[in-house]
Amino acid sequence: MATATLPVLRERVDHGLPARFARSAAVTGAGALTRTADVAGWLDERRRAHRFAVRRVPFAGLEGWSFAPGTGNLAHRSGRFFTVEGLAVTTGTGPYPSWQQPVIHQPEVGILGILAKEFDGVLHFLMQAKMEPGNPNLLQLSPTVQATRSNYTKAHGGSGVRHLDHFLRPGRGGDRVLADSLQSEHGAWFFRKSNRNMIVETTGDVPAHEDFRWLTLGQLGELLRLDNVVNMDTRTVLAGVPGPAGSGALHSDTELLSWFTAERARHEVDARLIPLGRVAGWRRDDREIAHERGRFFTVVAVSVEAGSREVTGWTQPLIAPVGRGVAAFLTRTVDGVPHLLAHARVEGGFLDTVELAPTVQCVPENHHPDLVREGQPFLDAVLRADPARVRYSAVHSEEGGRFLDAEIRYMVVEADAPLDPPPGYRWCTPAQLTALARHGHYLNVQARSLLALVTSGAVRL
Amino acid sequence: MATATLPVLRERVDHGLPARFARSAAVTGAGALTRTADVAGWLDERRRAHRFAVRRVPFAGLEGWSFAPGTGNLAHRSGRFFTVEGLAVTTGTGPYPSWQQPVIHQPEVGILGILAKEFDGVLHFLMQAKMEPGNPNLLQLSPTVQATRSNYTKAHGGSGVRHLDHFLRPGRGGDRVLADSLQSEHGAWFFRKSNRNMIVETTGDVPAHEDFRWLTLGQLGELLRLDNVVNMDTRTVLAGVPGPAGSGALHSDTELLSWFTAERARHEVDARLIPLGRVAGWRRDDREIAHERGRFFTVVAVSVEAGSREVTGWTQPLIAPVGRGVAAFLTRTVDGVPHLLAHARVEGGFLDTVELAPTVQCVPENHHPDLVREGQPFLDAVLRADPARVRYSAVHSEEGGRFLDAEIRYMVVEADAPLDPPPGYRWCTPAQLTALARHGHYLNVQARSLLALVTSGAVRL
Repeated sequence: MATATLPVLRERVDHGLPARFARSAAVTGAGALTRTADVAGWLDERRRAHRFAVRRVPFAGLEGWSFAPGTGNLAHRSGRFFTVEGLAVTTGTGPYPSWQQPVIHQPEVGILGILAKEFDGVLHFLMQAKMEPGNPNLLQLSPTVQATRSNYTKAHGGSGVRHLDHFLRPGRGGDRVLADSLQSEHGAWFFRKSNRNMIVETTGDVPAHEDFRWLTLGQLGELLRLDNVVNMDTRTVLAGVPGPAGSGALHSDTELLSWFTAERARHEVDARLIPLGRVAGWRRDDREIAHERGRFFTVVAVSVEAGSREVTGWTQPLIAPVGRGVAAFLTRTVDGVPHLLAHARVEGGFLDTVELAPTVQCVPENHHPDLVREGQPFLDAVLRADPARVRYSAVHSEEGGRFLDAEIRYMVVEADAPLDPPPGYRWCTPAQLTALARHGHYLNVQARSLLALVTSGAVRL
Repeated sequence: MATATLPVLRERVDHGLPARFARSAAVTGAGALTRTADVAGWLDERRRAHRFAVRRVPFAGLEGWSFAPGTGNLAHRSGRFFTVEGLAVTTGTGPYPSWQQPVIHQPEVGILGILAKEFDGVLHFLMQAKMEPGNPNLLQLSPTVQATRSNYTKAHGGSGVRHLDHFLRPGRGGDRVLADSLQSEHGAWFFRKSNRNMIVETTGDVPAHEDFRWLTLGQLGELLRLDNVVNMDTRTVLAGVPGPAGSGALHSDTELLSWFTAERARHEVDARLIPLGRVAGWRRDDREIAHERGRFFTVVAVSVEAGSREVTGWTQPLIAPVGRGVAAFLTRTVDGVPHLLAHARVEGGFLDTVELAPTVQCVPENHHPDLVREGQPFLDAVLRADPARVRYSAVHSEEGGRFLDAEIRYMVVEADAPLDPPPGYRWCTPAQLTALARHGHYLNVQARSLLALVTSGAVRL
């Protein structure tokens, strides 16, 4: 009897994987287990089943949180979760060459993980109906697992995180990692925060639970056309879906990397934490920390009651942006190949100077019109676009565990913007952006939210 | 008469490029213009032609440099070049969970650029005979351009940097970028320093100059087998040479990225600048700053006289390591495919927790043997290797503009180390490492030095 030798080597790249995701993206209307039309009802049902209540409280109403003597930093007595500190940024360029602001400091890497599994030969993704206190509608579709290190080391003192083991030990059993990278969070609100964005495929049995449903990528694309249904963490993970190679582009991959390298090199950003109590231009009262001219955002406190989360109630600070943002990619098809206009954008909280952002990213009402035009040359192309050329427009909210009612209108707009755009801007194909999203710190979170529209089929370019 | 439409799109990837580099790597003995055997004589001749003299001086002998009141940081009065400050690191793990040390702070991106050009259908690379005060033999083969931002913005007050324009405006004329990425410098001696590593191909005429010679990649591989001929900046740029894809590996690319992401996520490194005057465990006298037990390195001052550099004389601080380092990859061939054992290593000056380092990287004499074994499980496999299994061994020095006599023995050693190595270690193919080197902050500078041996053919696995 011959003994078979196990093959030791494997292919570096699974060239069949993009087609499997594409097949899932093509399945809309109904997956193997759930109709898209039933998702809203299920979310409403979960919203009713859990008795969620979030209310603003004064800082004095925070339990376990206080402003530290000396620094004035807002911190939890356990030393865990996160702190609100000050940030001093000097860029030397742009409409704001230097500024100070409050910022969230959370030097730990969380996990945003979506579990995938084939049903009837089609990849489905296990989505969770999850409450986050900052979501305008409280409950949205979240990844299978959305856990800070505090969560999964039990700093909450609550129950374990369901399905976490698929992501903490992703090689075990029949599980296989399809995507896994460290990606930045909002550089305007977080100091150098990144999370692990993972997609793990399992062939094992997954216990059913009323807060979880399996959906195809195409169904997620349908839901992404609605306001405030698919949460930010889901969107950023979906940006990591491997796309088809797409061989043609205005710039070769090496040219694109070289341009990006030059953008990183030409910006010198000095960003450092300072005591919150010494941040210039901001004032604190008993209910909020606010910019002295009412701009940008406020830091507030909330009290949360919930039945479905890891613990049943807690208080915490949140960042509440002033005004609704806009994040938009201009798109233009060149020789039959769609391109998106990326912007190498400085944000004070980035680990490394710039990341690729949407063509337009700002809160229009925050700025004097002159500054808008100085810093955002394509804002008018978006805000005044012919409706026939708006390929996508929906409002989504940002991470509801840290941001209160942080809504952004995400748009994809056709435009005849020049193929040779101003410095700091470059046309890329979605395939090029998808390839960059396999690595960390190339695409900011807003760009990834928009890229998820492409990978999921929510917008077809 | 028909008007031709220029093709606008290009291929994302030039699949012919690896073969062009391979062809150049195959040319040894003599290039189109220079025999390898004549390089040593040319370097000696250049060494004689320039009247180089470097001597240690007390800190009081530094011109324009002084220890700032208050912080004790060592800085130049212009505010440029670099500063020597303090660094406090907490990792919470390993043999040294926290420490303080002096560190070089130079928050600007330099350019390390090699100009390439075809002669007789073979790529040649324009190498410079360049003096750096910290090189043991003063003059080595450097990239075409090796320039800090201070260099090319004329902070030296000296002459312009030759050939710089090919790298500052790499798209101009017939020039084409072949590789361009931001790569880290030594995380033990620099705080978050990175340089732009570029290879640019030109089709234009390049004026000859006695300090410059065109060599093939194979010739550089021959010279890399000699001690202290090819400088560190050349080696790191050569690590960016695009390699052939090589489809098989022990771990798929996605598995490798996932492992690396997990390594980044599991380390929490707090590294922050502190005043040099407050660094614990180090003492300063009038000639050096040294560790109180004589370990690691000293900070010293030198006076330089030279005729061929941008200016004719200057003084500066340098870091002088204590003892000669070892940096070695273990190699093992699996199913006919060679692999290298990479280590996800924490260095206090890294931008982001860990980078991939050689299997062994340390200064053996710096550590108590127990600590060596705790932190470097494969040190004995390298130091006590059967000479027949040592595939490469040569001494190279690190960046001579910042480090004095900083020699490391670089080795590649065959070993039967386990295919399932301890946590923090992973077998990778050279092709996988080459692919990662297209992006920044995956490979540390020692790993890139060793990878250059593979791309240049200095070692054939």
